[in-house]
Amino acid sequence: MLSSVKEQIKIPRATIERLPLYYKTLQNLDNEDVVTTSTLELSKILGITPETIRKDLNLFGHFGIKGAGYDVINLMLKIGNILGLQNYWRIAIIGVGNLGAALAKFEKITDWGFVIAALFDIDENKIGEDINGVRIYDFKKFVPISGRKLIDIGVIAVPDDAAQNVADVLVEAGVKGIWNFSAVQIEVPNDFTVINENLMVGLSALSFYLNQNAK
Amino acid sequence: MLSSVKEQIKIPRATIERLPLYYKTLQNLDNEDVVTTSTLELSKILGITPETIRKDLNLFGHFGIKGAGYDVINLMLKIGNILGLQNYWRIAIIGVGNLGAALAKFEKITDWGFVIAALFDIDENKIGEDINGVRIYDFKKFVPISGRKLIDIGVIAVPDDAAQNVADVLVEAGVKGIWNFSAVQIEVPNDFTVINENLMVGLSALSFYLNQNAK
Repeated sequence: MLSSVKEQIKIPRATIERLPLYYKTLQNLDNEDVVTTSTLELSKILGITPETIRKDLNLFGHFGIKGAGYDVINLMLKIGNILGLQNYWRIAIIGVGNLGAALAKFEKITDWGFVIAALFDIDENKIGEDINGVRIYDFKKFVPISGRKLIDIGVIAVPDDAAQNVADVLVEAGVKGIWNFSAVQIEVPNDFTVINENLMVGLSALSFYLNQNAK
Repeated sequence: MLSSVKEQIKIPRATIERLPLYYKTLQNLDNEDVVTTSTLELSKILGITPETIRKDLNLFGHFGIKGAGYDVINLMLKIGNILGLQNYWRIAIIGVGNLGAALAKFEKITDWGFVIAALFDIDENKIGEDINGVRIYDFKKFVPISGRKLIDIGVIAVPDDAAQNVADVLVEAGVKGIWNFSAVQIEVPNDFTVINENLMVGLSALSFYLNQNAK
């Protein structure tokens, strides 16, 4: 759950959150060998109004062919490009507990072009081990290893009380993108980007709707 | 990452997504023995404009005392009430792989008043084991066990190609709330609520901002 993001640019956050849904849907259509699609079809699959889809895509230029719809692969590649997926961002996961280990094995991350380049922990029993061939390093050596491994994105998967410390080390290492799974609102300089993944937002929303429906 | 939700009611989705952030912040303030707070303080902590916070809270009635701010515990309990957290919703996690196991150990879930009541898998090596005292049952027996355990929420933490099948069983069992961690857009009858937790939305947003900043 995206909960906070620096909004330096003009694209609405809601649009940025929908782009991956379009991307995923186009990927699925391509896997089913569907060659062209339409706003209406995307709308039906995703439950998003055709107007919203049209408005979202128009923000990035003219995609469709009037009457002919969209070329699935073309649109997918263009959206991937807008999302920056062509950069093969290199990820380090900090904290190889249950969550960190689950993320290290989460195939979608690599399917989408991200590279899990290194794992870090402070537990000596874990350091030197690997997950799917990616080694677990001593977090004390994060700065030099992160430089050598060209890390772009640091994933904070440590207990809440260690999250800000980890963020400080990521900043020291110049890792500009932070994917924060802790419940802590971490502080970083302005030129760093933090995405907070707050699972409780989704679960609470579910609780909200169940509560409404029960009334 | 919340990606899709039925919007039967008038409260904007964005507001519903912010309520848990207010709740969490108030929890933290209470833990620090802070007794009163203000829109401005919440704004500073969360990076959300005071106007938005005021507008959000006004949707649910009059909370603050003009000039005196909010009573932390009172506001926290009221937001918890709006979110339905007082219901002690009973959760079953289906699929005890890395993600399912991580969720079963995720303390925030129980901290917020949800009850992890049962785990399910099809792997015979896992069935009969437990995680933090919660037993792993055979998913084939989901319908009777879910009835006996009074399950309100089913968490889909299985591989994508099994997700719709699991959803069908949840529907058969009358489990009205579904927290879907698969990448599949599952289909359920209208009176069921699905929250899709799509981690790739958060990671892609991070990629988007990194890409923008690199330009």
